[in-house]
Amino acid sequence: MQDRRRIAILAEGCFTPRDAKTAVGVLRYRPDEVVAVIDSTRAGRTTGACAGVGAETPIVADLDGAATRNPNALLIGIAPQGGELPAAWRAMVCDALERGWDVLSGLHVFLEDDPGLRDVARRGRATIHDVRRPPAGRPVGSGRAREVDAHVVLTVGTDCNVGKMTAALEIERELLRRGERARFVATGQTGILIAGRGVPADAVVSDFLAGAIEREVLEAAGGADVLLVEGQGSLHHPGYSAVTLGILHGACPSSLVLCHWAGRQGMTVGGARDALPVPTLEEAARAAETASEWGAPARVIGLALNTLDLDEKAALEACRDGAARLGVPATDPVRFGAASLAEAVIEARARSRRAKD
Amino acid sequence: MQDRRRIAILAEGCFTPRDAKTAVGVLRYRPDEVVAVIDSTRAGRTTGACAGVGAETPIVADLDGAATRNPNALLIGIAPQGGELPAAWRAMVCDALERGWDVLSGLHVFLEDDPGLRDVARRGRATIHDVRRPPAGRPVGSGRAREVDAHVVLTVGTDCNVGKMTAALEIERELLRRGERARFVATGQTGILIAGRGVPADAVVSDFLAGAIEREVLEAAGGADVLLVEGQGSLHHPGYSAVTLGILHGACPSSLVLCHWAGRQGMTVGGARDALPVPTLEEAARAAETASEWGAPARVIGLALNTLDLDEKAALEACRDGAARLGVPATDPVRFGAASLAEAVIEARARSRRAKD
Repeated sequence: MQDRRRIAILAEGCFTPRDAKTAVGVLRYRPDEVVAVIDSTRAGRTTGACAGVGAETPIVADLDGAATRNPNALLIGIAPQGGELPAAWRAMVCDALERGWDVLSGLHVFLEDDPGLRDVARRGRATIHDVRRPPAGRPVGSGRAREVDAHVVLTVGTDCNVGKMTAALEIERELLRRGERARFVATGQTGILIAGRGVPADAVVSDFLAGAIEREVLEAAGGADVLLVEGQGSLHHPGYSAVTLGILHGACPSSLVLCHWAGRQGMTVGGARDALPVPTLEEAARAAETASEWGAPARVIGLALNTLDLDEKAALEACRDGAARLGVPATDPVRFGAASLAEAVIEARARSRRAKD
Repeated sequence: MQDRRRIAILAEGCFTPRDAKTAVGVLRYRPDEVVAVIDSTRAGRTTGACAGVGAETPIVADLDGAATRNPNALLIGIAPQGGELPAAWRAMVCDALERGWDVLSGLHVFLEDDPGLRDVARRGRATIHDVRRPPAGRPVGSGRAREVDAHVVLTVGTDCNVGKMTAALEIERELLRRGERARFVATGQTGILIAGRGVPADAVVSDFLAGAIEREVLEAAGGADVLLVEGQGSLHHPGYSAVTLGILHGACPSSLVLCHWAGRQGMTVGGARDALPVPTLEEAARAAETASEWGAPARVIGLALNTLDLDEKAALEACRDGAARLGVPATDPVRFGAASLAEAVIEARARSRRAKD
């Protein structure tokens, strides 16, 4: 990669906050690196108007449209269940590589392992970055992350895709604004694209998941007073609970922030919407605390809601209701700011230091 | 592989029940397929005398010694943390392949991906079987295993290496003896070597672990009334808890059999013995039942103890104590038979059928 990324994000036909999770995440936290979004169904509008992120960043119809903004990289802006590259997008990836644009992909299938794409990349002198490629080595988790001096906070969720990465990044930003030495630890492809490093937890072989997270936390803890670890999945999700628990036992957090999509009743399972009920806030909080006790005990200290489906009055009411039910501060960190969650983290760290003294 | 396996098991320097888990497992459940064990430190003795399995099967000093018994395969008889091939053993693997013996390996590192070993195998017209290679595809778990007609039983443990595979196999054997249509579902390399199929759970990428187990259970359920699923790891083990939970949520058992190494106090973590305390029977049973409730609720219906460290009187006392504490039948299935556990499974299945009617 060149010193400065100028990214065109491929989100053909799906640039909405719900369907283009990676695109929206990168636009929200790295807006100055994105020069255009490609989605012919929304061309001519701005990302700000369509998804509330990236302000005036233009949406263009195709790679030619993006080329006028002089990008040096194409980012695959989706994260579908199963992780495959939609067949129709392959031609666009080839086109980008031929133009000499690097390709950033968070898919489970590694584009660099595709001989055809590798040939095109060589011809275009472009690089394919598979950010979901698992780290080298076979580390086995040992619970050592519980010994770090930094206060480790993990975001956990009632379901997938509820805002765990966003909550961690918003709390990090708020803590940094207050002068705290906070650091975000990425565990998913979007987080890794934003942070520039991390462990793609769900792509790690099961035996080494906790070990890989532990290693990342031990490395990140040097020079930080607070680590905000991005959680994945949900202990109640039949497909992804193993990933959730591996991160929990690898990171050994002291504090948990529960994340929930306000109003969502059903989980999407195996592509089927509403296949299983979303657990209640109380069930999800109790499950995460219980599972932490098998390793290092942690407490839920805050609730982060995604209130995208609610008007402002209903959103505030959802926060009040959640706070009352769990007895912790609750907010939509994107809509109302993360101040109360940042304060809860600072208080929890102080309590934990007093307990150690 | 030829129609009939004649296996020499490589267990150089470590043929004890504690260190040669794979060797002992295959000898116990497939004794007629093993022609010799290679361990120069114990050569001249029998496997029965050294480890209580395989009766008069000879222990020999080297491959030449094994060759007199006319094997057609060499099995790597260890399962170390980390899964690497000890450097000193590589020459022996090469030697076996040159003799035209197939090589069976359950290591995390795939011998077939080693160009040097592949060349030797080609020359010797031998095949390398990496039984820990994960299955093809990217299945995501959906909780569908809860819908199978067969009664699904999963073995769970207080720790790694306590007898989860053995308990499942002993209960299967006892149920078959009683005319029940029972089937063992293997999830580890030794179990796969014994059963001839299965999912090497700890080698599957985290996102697809529950899905791979679910697929295996759905396939195995046809034609069986009881499935005995081999559990892995422990919810309390900081390295392997993700594997344990992925199997639990993928298999959706109705019944759990808790397994414990009687008298063991400390868990081996990252190579360090006794690094963390083993949970109590009550803690382990509660954890497994609680975690099952996030998916499909299951109950602990029996306790399987490994009493290898105890004399007979102490072993019987440990069973009585465990049964009283958990309120379920308890036995060492190898030492005292699995009758009480098989009966508990039959009763649980009957209860569950009545509940469905």
